[in-house]
Amino acid sequence: MSSASIVTIGNAIVDIISKADDQFIIDQGMEKSAMNLIDGDRASQLYDAIGPAMEVSGGSAANTAVGISSFGGSAGFIGKISEDLLGKVFTHDISAAGVAFPPVYDADHPTACSFILVTPDTERTMNTYLGACITLNEDDMNEELIAGADWVYLEGYLFDAPRGPGCYQRVAEIAHANNTKLALSLSDAWCVERHYDALTGFIADHADLIFGNEDELLSLFPGDFDAAVKRLPELVAEAAITKGAGGSMAVTSGEVVAVPAQQDIKVVDTTGAGDLYAAGYLFGRQRGDGLERSAQLATIAASEVISHIGARPLDRLADQI
Amino acid sequence: MSSASIVTIGNAIVDIISKADDQFIIDQGMEKSAMNLIDGDRASQLYDAIGPAMEVSGGSAANTAVGISSFGGSAGFIGKISEDLLGKVFTHDISAAGVAFPPVYDADHPTACSFILVTPDTERTMNTYLGACITLNEDDMNEELIAGADWVYLEGYLFDAPRGPGCYQRVAEIAHANNTKLALSLSDAWCVERHYDALTGFIADHADLIFGNEDELLSLFPGDFDAAVKRLPELVAEAAITKGAGGSMAVTSGEVVAVPAQQDIKVVDTTGAGDLYAAGYLFGRQRGDGLERSAQLATIAASEVISHIGARPLDRLADQI
Repeated sequence: MSSASIVTIGNAIVDIISKADDQFIIDQGMEKSAMNLIDGDRASQLYDAIGPAMEVSGGSAANTAVGISSFGGSAGFIGKISEDLLGKVFTHDISAAGVAFPPVYDADHPTACSFILVTPDTERTMNTYLGACITLNEDDMNEELIAGADWVYLEGYLFDAPRGPGCYQRVAEIAHANNTKLALSLSDAWCVERHYDALTGFIADHADLIFGNEDELLSLFPGDFDAAVKRLPELVAEAAITKGAGGSMAVTSGEVVAVPAQQDIKVVDTTGAGDLYAAGYLFGRQRGDGLERSAQLATIAASEVISHIGARPLDRLADQI
Repeated sequence: MSSASIVTIGNAIVDIISKADDQFIIDQGMEKSAMNLIDGDRASQLYDAIGPAMEVSGGSAANTAVGISSFGGSAGFIGKISEDLLGKVFTHDISAAGVAFPPVYDADHPTACSFILVTPDTERTMNTYLGACITLNEDDMNEELIAGADWVYLEGYLFDAPRGPGCYQRVAEIAHANNTKLALSLSDAWCVERHYDALTGFIADHADLIFGNEDELLSLFPGDFDAAVKRLPELVAEAAITKGAGGSMAVTSGEVVAVPAQQDIKVVDTTGAGDLYAAGYLFGRQRGDGLERSAQLATIAASEVISHIGARPLDRLADQI
């Protein structure tokens, strides 16, 4: 039977990564730097329009699990795929990375893919066809895997799926019954805005730790950034907020720790930066590190992944600490 | 109808690229830095054994065509695929790169893939399952495309396919009848050694230009490197020989030009170095550049491709000259 110290849950996606200029993003009517949801027809049409691509396994929470494993941590992932070639690729890559992945299959939809367009400013704009992920539901929340973990981590994107809120509730039940701590990522400002009441309610009731960037924090507490940071402890016991080149901060009611970004890296593709930040932070907290060391580990992981194309580490993170 | 100034011919392959240590190469009984041919069963077994991977279109002559197009040249490619997902990926990537590719399909075998293992020394060891490529034959040599081109370029690997020598002969006939110049790459020392008499005979009778690295040159003329360079004009009117970090040289009976390697690049993955060298050199020669400028363009292309994972340029080569 699979077991893991940290279990992440989210959309199981294979990324189709291509370079594009800003005009292409505008011409295609995409919201830049965001995650745009698309259907199967649009996916076919978009594939014809983009430049040469490479296929790399992705998915926000899956990337986080791979990052934890790359540090030498014990990680598991729950997500849904199809028994097609992309499903085989996804399963190979996450298993070969050492993550426990008891696959859950959907018979009616293909494995999800995301067309990720990297613009010259290294920003990524995502266009995700959810495919098999759309049917992930409360019955797929592997009780034994979650019950045996110290932490369970939910990606915010999942809250937007038809049965995503049901997944969240079921995970919270299992976590509470088994003393598993619950973390979640805000994922995207639109995700917070679309589900503001339900998501903030869930965080207040169930989350021990949240992750977000500046935009996502401001979607929780509109207005001034510093004021938003001060208000965070009203909502959740612990938060880690990333600020891109401005570094990051870990926030609790008693402590605010700022950690600078790594200075000496050539940024190539920011895809996966937030996912790998969460990986390092969770790895640190799970093994007992404090806020500052955890934020430093998070920074190491994020720095590795933005130095190359693709949202998962190419080099073992355990060798970098 | 498709047309191109330079047409390349070879195996249509999707690369499955993974990092590996040297012990893995030894344990798996592979010849390091070479191209190892494998069958379908071995491909499945190997996929289970390798680490996380990324999928990127490849194939030696196909990479060369993409490089020519990236310089702004007019390129075409002839190769065989299946109507499966990897075939769709291959067709998308080469077409999106601006290469004329009238696909030829095989109904009985899947699209070829090559498991490329990149060791810490940045060398690549390839394990190729030829799939649909195995049936490429003389009837697939697109007469109109080749007849309309200034240059046709054959990869040496193709000579090893069951009907590869037939493809070579047919291409030579079309080229001679239409004043299309013929170039070929030696591809791999084993390829030269296995087919020494037939391949050297073909070069002497039909080739206007050959490409090779030091090992491949020595497989043509065993012994001393400088002596081998001197003997090249006995065999072929023009040759371009790469020496890795030692730069490269272009050789004719009247002229030997040495061009240094680019010094300021961090080598990540040498896959595609020779293919992109040939792209730059052919692009230069086709537009009328001399040996030195062509070797410099070749060096620019090879330098770009070894600075990242994958055997095709990520950035437009036309912007770098």
